[in-house]
Parts: sequence; C-alpha cells; structure tokens
Amino acid sequence: MPIYVVGHKIPDSDSICGAIALAHLKNEIGEPAIATRLGDPSPETQFILDKFGFEAPEYKESYAGEEVYIVDHSELTQAPDDIEQATIVGIVDHHKLGDLTTSTPLECWIRPVGCSNTVIKMMYDFYGVEIPKNIAGIMMCAILSDTVIFKSPTCTTADIKCVEALAEIAGISDPKELGMEMFRVKSAVEGTPVRDLVMRDFKDFNMNGNLVGIGQLEVIDLSVFDEIKAELEADLIKLKEEGKRHSVLLLLTDIMKEGSELLIASDDVAVIEKAFDKSADNKVWLDGVLSRKKQVVPPLQEVFA
Amino acid sequence: MPIYVVGHKIPDSDSICGAIALAHLKNEIGEPAIATRLGDPSPETQFILDKFGFEAPEYKESYAGEEVYIVDHSELTQAPDDIEQATIVGIVDHHKLGDLTTSTPLECWIRPVGCSNTVIKMMYDFYGVEIPKNIAGIMMCAILSDTVIFKSPTCTTADIKCVEALAEIAGISDPKELGMEMFRVKSAVEGTPVRDLVMRDFKDFNMNGNLVGIGQLEVIDLSVFDEIKAELEADLIKLKEEGKRHSVLLLLTDIMKEGSELLIASDDVAVIEKAFDKSADNKVWLDGVLSRKKQVVPPLQEVFA
Repeated sequence: MPIYVVGHKIPDSDSICGAIALAHLKNEIGEPAIATRLGDPSPETQFILDKFGFEAPEYKESYAGEEVYIVDHSELTQAPDDIEQATIVGIVDHHKLGDLTTSTPLECWIRPVGCSNTVIKMMYDFYGVEIPKNIAGIMMCAILSDTVIFKSPTCTTADIKCVEALAEIAGISDPKELGMEMFRVKSAVEGTPVRDLVMRDFKDFNMNGNLVGIGQLEVIDLSVFDEIKAELEADLIKLKEEGKRHSVLLLLTDIMKEGSELLIASDDVAVIEKAFDKSADNKVWLDGVLSRKKQVVPPLQEVFA
Repeated sequence: MPIYVVGHKIPDSDSICGAIALAHLKNEIGEPAIATRLGDPSPETQFILDKFGFEAPEYKESYAGEEVYIVDHSELTQAPDDIEQATIVGIVDHHKLGDLTTSTPLECWIRPVGCSNTVIKMMYDFYGVEIPKNIAGIMMCAILSDTVIFKSPTCTTADIKCVEALAEIAGISDPKELGMEMFRVKSAVEGTPVRDLVMRDFKDFNMNGNLVGIGQLEVIDLSVFDEIKAELEADLIKLKEEGKRHSVLLLLTDIMKEGSELLIASDDVAVIEKAFDKSADNKVWLDGVLSRKKQVVPPLQEVFA
C-alpha cells in the first residue's frame, strides 16, 4: 500500500513541489509513495512544473484508511477533510505547530526555516539519496517562492545554502533571475476572476475558536491591483460570510517595495488593528511585512488568545 | 536568555537523560540551554545519574515567558502547567503527535523509534558534535530502559545501532548486562508506598475529552507485587476519583515473561475490555504487551474516538 504525500489545501509551490520531491525520496528508500494534491496548481506552480518537465501530482480529495505524509502544514483546517480517518505517518513543515494529532507514533521533520523544501533537502542528505536534476529545479523554485527570493524575514541561511546547492545540481546559473521570472508570472493578474485571485494562496486558521482566512498575493508592482481593489474588498466580505469566518484578510505584497497592503473584512476590525498596532479603515499599509507566517499569523494569534 | 530543556511530568529516564543530553548539545552549538525536570528522578534514573556522575537537572515548575525545548512528549497533559505562556522552540519525541500547539515556527525532531535519546543522537550527528563519554552513558541507558533492553515492540534497528555506538563511546562492553542491572534496581518495590509506585511512571492522556491515566511498572518478576496487589488496585480507584479521570490503568510488566498484567479502575470497564478484546474483572493478563505507547494507548485511543 503506497503512502500518499500531500501538501495543504489551495496548494502553493512548496506543497506541490514538496510532495513530488518527498514522494521521490520515499520511493528511493524503498517506501512506495505517490504525490497528490488537494487543489489546482497556481500559475506560478504551473510555470515551475512546465519549466522542469513535470505533470501536476494526482488530484485526490479523500484519504480515509490510507497512510499519509503531510507536507507544509500541521493544521486540521488545511489538511484533507477526512484526515482523521487516515494514518499520518509523517509531517514535513516549517510553520508553527498546528492542531493535527495522531494516535500512533510518526516522524516529524519540522524546522523554523523558510520553506518545506529546505527540510526535504535535509531528508535527502540524511538518507544519502541523490537529488535528480529536475527535482532539484522544482525544490529550488519552491524555496525562492516561499522566501520571496531571500527577501522574506522567514528566510534563513539554511534556505540560501540550500538554493545554492540545488541550483548547482539543476544546472541553473542565476537562481535569483529565475525567481524574478517566476514572480513576473505571479504578477499577471489581469483577466483572472476576483475570487480566483483571493483564493490563489489562501489559508484558514483556527484562532482560539475563530476561523480566520488569510490570503496573500505577491507581485512585483501593486499597481496591478488598482482597478480591481474595490472588487477584491467586496469579495472578502462575501467570503467571510460564506465561510462563517470571523475575518478574511488579504495581503497584497509588493516584493520590490518590501511591504504589504492588508485588506480587511472582519466582524471586529478593532482586533485586527490591535494585532498590528495601526488604525485601519479596512485596509492598511504594513511596511516591511512580507511573511504571512512570521509577521501576520503570530500577532493575530496573540490578540485572539 | 537560556532555553530550558525539559521532559514530561513524572519524568522517566528518557526525559531526564534526554534533557541533559540535549542541553549539552545546544550549549555546544552556541545556544545557551539549561536542563530542567518536572519531578523527582525514579530509582532507575537515579541509578543512571549516579553511575555516570551526574546531578539531577534543576527542578523547575514554571516556564511562563521562557523559551522551552520539550523532550519526550507533545501532550499538554504531560507538559509544564503554564506551557501556553512559554515559547516552545523545539520538540524531540518518539510518541504519537499530541495536542501541543505553538504560535510561532519551531523545530520538531520526532521519529517512530524506541526512545527520544535515539533521536537526540541523530541531532548530535546532524550538528557534528562529539558526545562526551558520560553523556553517551546516560543516553544509552535511557534507550535500554525505553526499549526494555530491545524486547519492546517499539524497539527499532535505529535504537539498537544507537546503543552500540553509544556503548562504544561510553566504554561499556556489555550494555545488555547494564540494562539488566538497571531493571533489577527498578524491580525493588519493597518498602515503597503504594501511591509512589503507581505514580512512578504515570502519564495522563486526553482521549477524546476523557482523562485516562496509565501507569507502568516494569520488573523482572511479577511476584514482587503479590502482597501489595490489592492495595495497588484500591489506590487506582482513589486516583481515578481524585483526578476526575475516566479510567486509571496500571501495567505490571514482566520483562522476562514478556507480557503485562493490566489493573483497571474505570467508570466504564467495558470500554477498556473492548480496546483489548478481552473480558476483564478489573484485571487481565496481556500476553506480549510491553509497550504502553504502542500496545496500550493506540487501542484505547480507538475505542474512545
């Protein structure tokens, strides 16, 4: 019986590339594994897959009765709906420890680094398994994406060294330039339905019993949102009501200016204001904020505690 | 500010030796750390500490505002009472994933092996730090204890190889004989108050909202309990009521016969019977059962789910 290796709902590049890379490693060490996904690849992820010649992993919603290796999260809200009927055999992640629990011992490779693929590289090193050229390519791109080409405060020395090593294996001479190419793909929002944009990189968090959804769009110039900002704001309100969420937030991140505009739809804007110590009229510029995980989730967690 | 490295409540040898070993490693890699404990060392642990010339770690109950590295568990019920006011920077463990959560990224070294010290050895190897002779000795003893000298079904090849490597460093020619010496110390129950025996290796579990306490006493001959069994059983009932527990179980494990007598005090004995598929009159012999973690907790978890 194979292990299914799966990232979080609304998968980002780390979830998709990590599932492929980890499933390959598992197969190499004699544990049959299949990479799967819980949603469609984003345009950025599709660009990475195309660039290195991969098909997207198999779409698979249900995991009841299966063995599952979780990639890039440890939160029930981000896991398969029936994860409690599956056996979690492992977790590789780089976020805060969430509310997934198991009834049997498992392995957890969790590190406070910028990307799950950096941890997966450590796993390859631990097992002494060589990383194929094309897998090194997608792992490298996932790290460049998660660390915003090393600009994010989540980026560590381990991530930078890992990209250098993977670039060497993949034969990529200028990883940063490939990163910029990726972010240019990511910045092409024109013609995409507003809801698709909001949901492109969206995660739900259980904050002390309150459901808080946080999306993020990283672009090289925020002006791409000028004409659709009102529509985005209206859609956040809808999304909040549809999902019975306490709040829905959308980070519009300018990776060149290195900051984010935060759009807010909330039952209690004051709580959000308190988290960032700013008065906000349903939107606010947060200078230097690039990371949802490190700069947005923890202060929110604190005010909800 | 130092990191406090602490094992679970009612610490066993893995918790105490692991805290010492991991604190040493952290200091070696430039992260000031102090080993602490949440309770008194058992006679077995004291034997190990004396044998290799260690003082018990500092007793410390409160961790609010501190950075903490958790050893040998990931359960709220086994952690410091105020752990939610501390920052968990890491977890090293070999059990099922419990209900500890964090609000910031952390490192988790969790592996499905027989002992946390086997994982700590992997950490030493990862960082390329040499293990001092006396620390190798206590780590080795912790593994021999947790794996019941390799007899437990939780024991893996990694644990055996780890003991071999540590014995070499510690200069111990016959680790199994040292293990037997340890278990003879553990078997000396005469003169110890009954409550102290029940609590010697006792863990509370939250099973779907029900508090279930499970103690274990591992000896080389169950006859040492003959004269006090009735007292033990009476004390389990008291303990259940005092702690508002659903059930209190005590495993009397015969490491030579390789099985356990399970003493049961429960609001619903039928649930416990169902877990082990045996009819029990408040006690039952479980042939081949040596491991609370692998053979007792999972079937209980299942019937409570």
